[in-house]
Amino acid sequence: MNAEGPIRVTVWGEGLEQRRPEVARIYPDGIHEAVAEALRDELGLDGDVRTAQLSEHEHGLRTEVLAQTDVLAWWGHSAHDEVADVVAERVVQQVLDGMGLVVLHSAHLSKPFLSLMGTRCTLRWRNADEREIVWVVAPAHPIAEGLSEAIVIPEHEMYGEYFDVPSPDELVFISSFDGGEVFRSGCCWTRGKGRVFYFSPGHETQPVYRQPEIRRVLANAARWTRRRSSPIDTASSPNSPAGWLESHG
Amino acid sequence: MNAEGPIRVTVWGEGLEQRRPEVARIYPDGIHEAVAEALRDELGLDGDVRTAQLSEHEHGLRTEVLAQTDVLAWWGHSAHDEVADVVAERVVQQVLDGMGLVVLHSAHLSKPFLSLMGTRCTLRWRNADEREIVWVVAPAHPIAEGLSEAIVIPEHEMYGEYFDVPSPDELVFISSFDGGEVFRSGCCWTRGKGRVFYFSPGHETQPVYRQPEIRRVLANAARWTRRRSSPIDTASSPNSPAGWLESHG
Amino acid sequence: MNAEGPIRVTVWGEGLEQRRPEVARIYPDGIHEAVAEALRDELGLDGDVRTAQLSEHEHGLRTEVLAQTDVLAWWGHSAHDEVADVVAERVVQQVLDGMGLVVLHSAHLSKPFLSLMGTRCTLRWRNADEREIVWVVAPAHPIAEGLSEAIVIPEHEMYGEYFDVPSPDELVFISSFDGGEVFRSGCCWTRGKGRVFYFSPGHETQPVYRQPEIRRVLANAARWTRRRSSPIDTASSPNSPAGWLESHG
Amino acid sequence: MNAEGPIRVTVWGEGLEQRRPEVARIYPDGIHEAVAEALRDELGLDGDVRTAQLSEHEHGLRTEVLAQTDVLAWWGHSAHDEVADVVAERVVQQVLDGMGLVVLHSAHLSKPFLSLMGTRCTLRWRNADEREIVWVVAPAHPIAEGLSEAIVIPEHEMYGEYFDVPSPDELVFISSFDGGEVFRSGCCWTRGKGRVFYFSPGHETQPVYRQPEIRRVLANAARWTRRRSSPIDTASSPNSPAGWLESHG
Repeated sequence: MNAEGPIRVTVWGEGLEQRRPEVARIYPDGIHEAVAEALRDELGLDGDVRTAQLSEHEHGLRTEVLAQTDVLAWWGHSAHDEVADVVAERVVQQVLDGMGLVVLHSAHLSKPFLSLMGTRCTLRWRNADEREIVWVVAPAHPIAEGLSEAIVIPEHEMYGEYFDVPSPDELVFISSFDGGEVFRSGCCWTRGKGRVFYFSPGHETQPVYRQPEIRRVLANAARWTRRRSSPIDTASSPNSPAGWLESHG
Repeated sequence: MNAEGPIRVTVWGEGLEQRRPEVARIYPDGIHEAVAEALRDELGLDGDVRTAQLSEHEHGLRTEVLAQTDVLAWWGHSAHDEVADVVAERVVQQVLDGMGLVVLHSAHLSKPFLSLMGTRCTLRWRNADEREIVWVVAPAHPIAEGLSEAIVIPEHEMYGEYFDVPSPDELVFISSFDGGEVFRSGCCWTRGKGRVFYFSPGHETQPVYRQPEIRRVLANAARWTRRRSSPIDTASSPNSPAGWLESHG
Repeated sequence: MNAEGPIRVTVWGEGLEQRRPEVARIYPDGIHEAVAEALRDELGLDGDVRTAQLSEHEHGLRTEVLAQTDVLAWWGHSAHDEVADVVAERVVQQVLDGMGLVVLHSAHLSKPFLSLMGTRCTLRWRNADEREIVWVVAPAHPIAEGLSEAIVIPEHEMYGEYFDVPSPDELVFISSFDGGEVFRSGCCWTRGKGRVFYFSPGHETQPVYRQPEIRRVLANAARWTRRRSSPIDTASSPNSPAGWLESHG
Repeated sequence: MNAEGPIRVTVWGEGLEQRRPEVARIYPDGIHEAVAEALRDELGLDGDVRTAQLSEHEHGLRTEVLAQTDVLAWWGHSAHDEVADVVAERVVQQVLDGMGLVVLHSAHLSKPFLSLMGTRCTLRWRNADEREIVWVVAPAHPIAEGLSEAIVIPEHEMYGEYFDVPSPDELVFISSFDGGEVFRSGCCWTRGKGRVFYFSPGHETQPVYRQPEIRRVLANAARWTRRRSSPIDTASSPNSPAGWLESHG
């Protein structure tokens, strides 16, 4: 267990995808449960993992829940618009105040991610069963720890460039696909006091979150994004009438 | 004149600040006119500069105006909330499509900048007449071209860290103030196909935009941010059913 | 012609590769002449392009030549070790003083590039005739100006990750290969007052530098890296006994 | 104790500075011993800290020592040239293979740092007893953990811009001085598989390394830079004749 206590993770999902038989075969309880299970296994005593989903009151993301969340993992696809603006905005504010955010696969178009990026977050895609090779391009980065040179996903949906996001502060993974496309598949940003990691693997009809290396990435990402306390308050622009030093020195 | 023709610049201001006598003494026609004059002088035949202000229909920023603007310079302070959401959003979309944006001084809290950054953009400030030294920390950057090691602003309002913005893609200037504060006063970002430059000098009660080195920075920033055409369309996530190469190769 | 006068480019090559018949068929006068021709065609009046090669006195890179060079383009492969240390160091010092450096293909292991990067610059490779797709991942970057979404090189040697270079300040291109590899094929760095661009296309047995899009990239890179004057002197650590402001203000 | 076992830190110093009485009063056993003591106190069971100095055989940095070092902290000032090239190069190679490097104060001109940066690493300086304020500009960064908005060093030598280093991958601290200078005083880079942190506080005639916040930064830096194992081998450019996937998939 790390010195700060276990990482409190909330895994959010739509909870709708498993209604489709081809998804239910792989993820009978929904993707959020599979991601949560991976994080529980990988983090062990370092993690304290719960789940939340769209159908819950306030989508399971009441203020008290988020205030006690160190890392929010978010998977969404077909119901981005059904997330209430007030909840999406609450997530954004928590990130700016230090909560980590792990954005998974099709959540590149989720409301919190769009707001934090400030861009369109569009990409090229193809429903396919193509081999994806996820290459490590930052071997010193904690999110790549324990991995080999690349992760091979035998069959996956294609996501390709141009991915309309701000240039990542750190680029950890680049993927290739059989069709010749490339994709910045593991991207790090800091927004306010919070850290954001986008990881593209995880289409609902392929058992990506059952793959050991992918599960390792999820756990690494939880460790890297976890909330850190900071005394800096960014809620408003403080007036320092007498000089900072005079009042603090 | 550069090969692409003159840079079409629109300088936007609130047009309210000059109602205060202490501002009118320095900027009788408003800050936007002073910035426009600086750009006209500095860019010469390379520039085609017009102005727009809050009181105009759609704040002078109709779709046709923005579509023919290569760089939008924006100064605002007391009336951020009076800018219509639809106009602010239009500016953001134009930036994502390639228009440059030069954000001046207190426009760090303007709607377009907040949306493009995704953070709170708060900072520390003090109404003062303190010496600001604007140090060049990227001597190879085009925005620093023609400058000496530092620009001294004899008297200026203090803006200090922590400045709650995403880590700039390129940091060109860092300022110090008599009170001991520091500030990342010249910051570059790319958002979508557009370039954004934030430059903090320019409080309304001090004649900062009359200073030759500051005017040079404005012109350099216009050149650096100017719209570039790109065939990449980010309006939506394109489906590539048959593979990009099959349809383009 | 731009305001600063034509860009003075020196294209350096080993001048050895055309001894091999399969190279001579494509580049009878050596690669440096093909690159120079491309730059002459593309830059027109904006360029003043000469060449230099290994066999010349001081490899054609005497101090006076470099002092009058705004951009040095460098292609090398089999004779990195034959470049005199004193000349390599001279190139490095010129870059730190503002000269641009465009490093082509197998010059990733050239002495000047290794010294400026500080890392091993190793990569994965395969002699092959594979399709390379060079994707634009920074559509707002001047080096991508005028390009489409991607450049297709019908047959090329494979260069793949992990590429052991410092994380680029700006990443412009990512390539994919038939074997599933990816590569950061267009990378920008600033070192001192000089700009460095590495561009991986250009194996000697394939006519890559005859391809129009590749030639456009070369010209864009020359424009982006061209020397800019800066009054900042980095030759030594200056002592400021009385304070910078006292002596400059 | 963290999961990976204690961080094995070697603190290197010249061991010469304490011959001067004004230094001996503050650091009777040399600066390396003060830094080591700080790290022992702060890391507790998470650290395993030893020291080495110039006068030892191979400066105390034999291959076996470095191979068992997770983080090397380096303070040097008057004797940079006395460090054997072979030892400096050994340090560089270890960093590229994953060892962390914490470069302190005047070690900006040490051989390993110069080699890893590729630039001149010059800066502006003034022997003075001026107040330095070290501002946090990356509150989410682990190296700033546990700090307030700024660290005030009551009296310190001045280091100012332009600091001729590659733009840091992450900028954690910016300092101001009474003379109006600014300095990027806490900078992060990755080189190969190793992480490098430069931290400018620590002139030998002022008791900077006795200050609690400075000691906290040293410990945070040790945690952030500590060696991580990676299976990627960068010793040479591997030929992948049959494709990576064929041999690994």
